[in-house]
Amino acid sequence: MVQQLQLSIGDKAFQELNEALEHGVSPELRRMLNGLPAPDAAHLLESSPPKLRSLLWRLIDREMEGDVLQELSDEVRQFFLDRMNVAELKAITEGQDVDDIADLLQQLPGTITRKVLDSMDSQDRQRVEVVLSYPEDTAGGLMNTDVITIRPSSTLDVVLRYLRRHQDIPEMTDSLFVVNRRDEYIGALPLSVLLTTDPSATVFEVMQTDLKPIAADMEDSQVAQVFERRDLVSAPVISENGQLLGRITIDDVVDVIREEAEHSMMSMAGLDDDEDTFAPALKTARRRAVWLGINLITAFIAASVIGMFQATIDKVVALAVLMPIVAGMGGNAGGQALTLVIRGMALGQISRTNLKWLLSRELMAGFLNGILWAALVSLIAYLWFRDPIISMVIACAMVINLSTAVIVGASLPVILKSMKIDPALAGTIILTTVSDVVGFLSFLGLATLFYS
Amino acid sequence: MVQQLQLSIGDKAFQELNEALEHGVSPELRRMLNGLPAPDAAHLLESSPPKLRSLLWRLIDREMEGDVLQELSDEVRQFFLDRMNVAELKAITEGQDVDDIADLLQQLPGTITRKVLDSMDSQDRQRVEVVLSYPEDTAGGLMNTDVITIRPSSTLDVVLRYLRRHQDIPEMTDSLFVVNRRDEYIGALPLSVLLTTDPSATVFEVMQTDLKPIAADMEDSQVAQVFERRDLVSAPVISENGQLLGRITIDDVVDVIREEAEHSMMSMAGLDDDEDTFAPALKTARRRAVWLGINLITAFIAASVIGMFQATIDKVVALAVLMPIVAGMGGNAGGQALTLVIRGMALGQISRTNLKWLLSRELMAGFLNGILWAALVSLIAYLWFRDPIISMVIACAMVINLSTAVIVGASLPVILKSMKIDPALAGTIILTTVSDVVGFLSFLGLATLFYS
Repeated sequence: MVQQLQLSIGDKAFQELNEALEHGVSPELRRMLNGLPAPDAAHLLESSPPKLRSLLWRLIDREMEGDVLQELSDEVRQFFLDRMNVAELKAITEGQDVDDIADLLQQLPGTITRKVLDSMDSQDRQRVEVVLSYPEDTAGGLMNTDVITIRPSSTLDVVLRYLRRHQDIPEMTDSLFVVNRRDEYIGALPLSVLLTTDPSATVFEVMQTDLKPIAADMEDSQVAQVFERRDLVSAPVISENGQLLGRITIDDVVDVIREEAEHSMMSMAGLDDDEDTFAPALKTARRRAVWLGINLITAFIAASVIGMFQATIDKVVALAVLMPIVAGMGGNAGGQALTLVIRGMALGQISRTNLKWLLSRELMAGFLNGILWAALVSLIAYLWFRDPIISMVIACAMVINLSTAVIVGASLPVILKSMKIDPALAGTIILTTVSDVVGFLSFLGLATLFYS
Repeated sequence: MVQQLQLSIGDKAFQELNEALEHGVSPELRRMLNGLPAPDAAHLLESSPPKLRSLLWRLIDREMEGDVLQELSDEVRQFFLDRMNVAELKAITEGQDVDDIADLLQQLPGTITRKVLDSMDSQDRQRVEVVLSYPEDTAGGLMNTDVITIRPSSTLDVVLRYLRRHQDIPEMTDSLFVVNRRDEYIGALPLSVLLTTDPSATVFEVMQTDLKPIAADMEDSQVAQVFERRDLVSAPVISENGQLLGRITIDDVVDVIREEAEHSMMSMAGLDDDEDTFAPALKTARRRAVWLGINLITAFIAASVIGMFQATIDKVVALAVLMPIVAGMGGNAGGQALTLVIRGMALGQISRTNLKWLLSRELMAGFLNGILWAALVSLIAYLWFRDPIISMVIACAMVINLSTAVIVGASLPVILKSMKIDPALAGTIILTTVSDVVGFLSFLGLATLFYS
């Protein structure tokens, strides 16, 4: 049954290795592991509990370690980086792309980063330092510096001969970038144009200027939107004064898109998007304790609201039976509004111009559902307890709570974001608090009025 | 404040248009709208409430409609498709990629699809029919049929001259595909190799065979994993007997990745991942009603558990005050386990070999947090109500409920998936039911034992 969950990427080697694993360590296992492409070996490490993970890591050949580390998620990578000395760190950066080296170095303590940088040759060091000078979550932090540049005055024939002198061109090169004498980006020459145009044409004549360069300080989520909208494979990154600094490729953007999309879901459960699925129990428990502790405060706030109405509950115990329904339905309705708006914001759909419409739509939808379910719940409550007061009170409380919850759910992400607070993380907690408090307060409060 | 939420993709035109919009319809507005790249116009439509959306759509030029439709999400696109006649539908498919036409046609009723197909020339129709013969969520449904194929015996020089006879080559072509006489895929010639190798070499000598072709019936989520792992820009799609059918490009895979990542978050709130952010209130209310109705059943199940213990609550009303804490904390802890496992499954990390470890880790982490928070809640409960029994009972109930909830949360996705039920959608509801029922049952049940 669970068998079919096994990842099958059409790579038999991966499955065979997984089977070999069940029979313990062997030279055969080592051979198979090191025969895997680095991303698959990394995936195997990420899918392994701690002990097995350390064991597998020791089996990986030195020269493969750097490639595997690049493919690991931050948290798992950190574990291995922490256990390496400077010489080992130097070794794994060799032959890596500049942006990947920068990623690694950013995870190390400052003094060690310095030591590794000092050990690199000056050209490489300079390149890495350029990338390191930009925050990790900007275009500058994402970019690579391996760019083939050409001059506008060259003919395509010259460009073709120039390329032929290369052993290889950088991966994901779909365009060559055209720069002027001051190294300023002025256009792009797609390989497709290079291959289909008369070689006697000059670069200037056929280059495309509609591929807008990306500013080095653009946020990575915006870079992702540009790539998605324009269906780009690579794009030039420029400095403030227009100089070409490097190039961003779609493979790095895909990682941004996945992380961003996962972030909201994980945050809503108080998890980090980089969370190691196979972290040890103690670490897991410690991390989650924080989130549970915050939720406990919420729970006690709700409890204290109930506490105010103990006398009423003592009089009509049916209130205790029904009160979680009011609170819960508010939480569910609000959660839908919250999730929809968080997704809309991630897609860049929510703005000043449409927010008002969205909020009134949510209020209307929440109110309609409030009426609908209030009627049903009210009927069931009456049939259950044969008490018209309780039946009427729960109906009013549900309409109040559902309407409040959807308005809070829909507006929270916008308010939190403008305060630079993560909407997914804080939004869920605040919404729960509000729907519990308003739910209990309206239901028990109205009941107290009518039963006194 | 909200201003800064405005999407800024470095495209001034987009912002200007948004401002022009506030001043009503004008020829200027029409000109600006039609001057936008199609993806931006589509984004503007998606970010607009219904009335404005229809208005903008009417302003879009006929020849741009097809491009804009391609970029819309299914639900918004459906709205416009439903309002088009066959002649309009024919017009918008002209000049579109085969995979995009297939996407459109799949959204139309069968009879209309047939009419549009009949109106196409026979070569185009055949191509679209090939793509239509595969389900939308498979490699076959994702692929495009515009592929440049070459023969292994040609020299690179011949290939270069062949390319130069093209006006243009298909977008995102980073490799030419090599086929034998039976049209079977045998390898790929990356443009980078073509450009850096001596033109007298034959294709056979320099082609790469490590780019494995993708079977047409592979699920799109697996295709996405292959692209992510191998950092691909394009990949060949083959039929069962090895014949080259077409090619998948990264731009379509990026859409799959984003939809997949969004799907879990939206499902957990009972929303469709294709949900229109600006759907009208009535439509929104109707859709959400289903989810709220199911949650109401859950809520009544929980209420009926409480109902069994009315006598005990009547005796000790403090139980009613504290019971939501026990249920809520279980729901939170279980939700974390559920989310982590759903993400792990999406990443292909969970398998038969590591599931047992994962479940015992979750149980251990849940138990540890149970003990920790039980101790604190027990203390607070004692200080609040000065009743050692209630203090002890709530501690036991919390350990029971947190441990149960994490085990249920962690195992549900795996069980549901093996039953082909969406883990995110059903998992959240079942988990809430379990954590409420177990929470109320253990807390009120134990209390009944000790107070009787």
